[in-house]
Amino acid sequence: MRNIKLTISYDGTNYRGWQIQKNGITVQEVIEKAIQKVFEKKCRLFGAGRTDSGVHAKGQVANFKTVAKISLQKIKAALNANLPEDIVIKKAEEVSLDFHSQFSAKKKKYKYILYNSKSPEPFLSRYSWQVMYKLDLSLMKKEAKILIGKHDFKSFQATDKKDRASVRTIENIVVKKRGKQISIELTGNGFLYNMVRNIVGTLIDIGRGYLASGSMKIILSKKNRSLAGPTAPAKGLFLMKIEY
Amino acid sequence: MRNIKLTISYDGTNYRGWQIQKNGITVQEVIEKAIQKVFEKKCRLFGAGRTDSGVHAKGQVANFKTVAKISLQKIKAALNANLPEDIVIKKAEEVSLDFHSQFSAKKKKYKYILYNSKSPEPFLSRYSWQVMYKLDLSLMKKEAKILIGKHDFKSFQATDKKDRASVRTIENIVVKKRGKQISIELTGNGFLYNMVRNIVGTLIDIGRGYLASGSMKIILSKKNRSLAGPTAPAKGLFLMKIEY
Repeated sequence: MRNIKLTISYDGTNYRGWQIQKNGITVQEVIEKAIQKVFEKKCRLFGAGRTDSGVHAKGQVANFKTVAKISLQKIKAALNANLPEDIVIKKAEEVSLDFHSQFSAKKKKYKYILYNSKSPEPFLSRYSWQVMYKLDLSLMKKEAKILIGKHDFKSFQATDKKDRASVRTIENIVVKKRGKQISIELTGNGFLYNMVRNIVGTLIDIGRGYLASGSMKIILSKKNRSLAGPTAPAKGLFLMKIEY
Repeated sequence: MRNIKLTISYDGTNYRGWQIQKNGITVQEVIEKAIQKVFEKKCRLFGAGRTDSGVHAKGQVANFKTVAKISLQKIKAALNANLPEDIVIKKAEEVSLDFHSQFSAKKKKYKYILYNSKSPEPFLSRYSWQVMYKLDLSLMKKEAKILIGKHDFKSFQATDKKDRASVRTIENIVVKKRGKQISIELTGNGFLYNMVRNIVGTLIDIGRGYLASGSMKIILSKKNRSLAGPTAPAKGLFLMKIEY
């Protein structure tokens, strides 16, 4: 038996997220079908993170087990030959049998892309959130830093999941501007459902002056989702990297 | 009467090119419908260049005439509010009544994007041609220079248009590499149907060693389409700029 780890990049626009579900086609399903074609056998593919409908990935990780003796190079090439253009296997590696893409993960990195302009940009419309407001970037950077560390992030958790344990550790948040693009990169040991998108929505409300300086500390401490900003749209979010 | 000049950017993936036709939706048609909605009147929109199905634009130009007194800023905003995300008006200007986007054009600039890698890239698959061959970039640059100047470009003209006048002037061709992306930028007084894509296909055949060094000069002089390389796919081509 071999355990194969795949590193995957995908444009999530046309998919109902990662995880197989009844309504709509998902990334997991499409890759499982490609594996079935290449290995002539059904295999369950375990993903590291369940990206939502419309969310993209540059470094999603998933693993599956097989007895087939196909070389890693051929696995990668054969899977890509059987995948649509918007899903690409970037790497195929053999890992120890106890490796599990989700449970073995130590760190995750997400990036959110904003397009800060009054005029839309057609080539970024699938891959960013256009924000027209003038943003106070230095205030956004300052307020983002409040979130670094181990905290109860209940205020940033999707309300329908509110009974779950909500303590997480954010190792770093980096806010950068380059031309009209602003990127917000978050690294942590794990993120709650919608947490990154809710943090981004809150940072925008702060940056545009709708929430005052100092709001992030209050929102975090109140553990109340209704105090934080809106959920930023899925299309600006990228799962960048999983570390093991 | 006012003559309004629009500078337009679009992702051509979902359109049957610029010009209105019976089968399939076109960029011209979508913008004309937005104009009709904003001005409550049908207006004919004249485009500078008829980009093909799947070709993109960052600087297409078009003009239309109207008696309406709407400000330029409002024209731009109202049109964008009535356009889909993949078509954007970048600029609206008032020009003299004798300005015609096509006939007044002095120069056009096109850019072709190649993704030179064995592994595909999902976020560039709509906006580039993936070429897996190892390419001799310095030879491509040298052979591209042969095309600069006033020549009969019949060898690079689509075969179904071969009876038309085919002398054009290419002012400059710049081949650049940045990471895995290669761009080929062409500036000239006008281009024949499929000319840019046929030049790119020929440069790739030269770069990968299928056509020998010195081929470009022979192909150009023979005025025979069958000697040149294949037509590069539409999705890598961008209409960048029209100069007046």
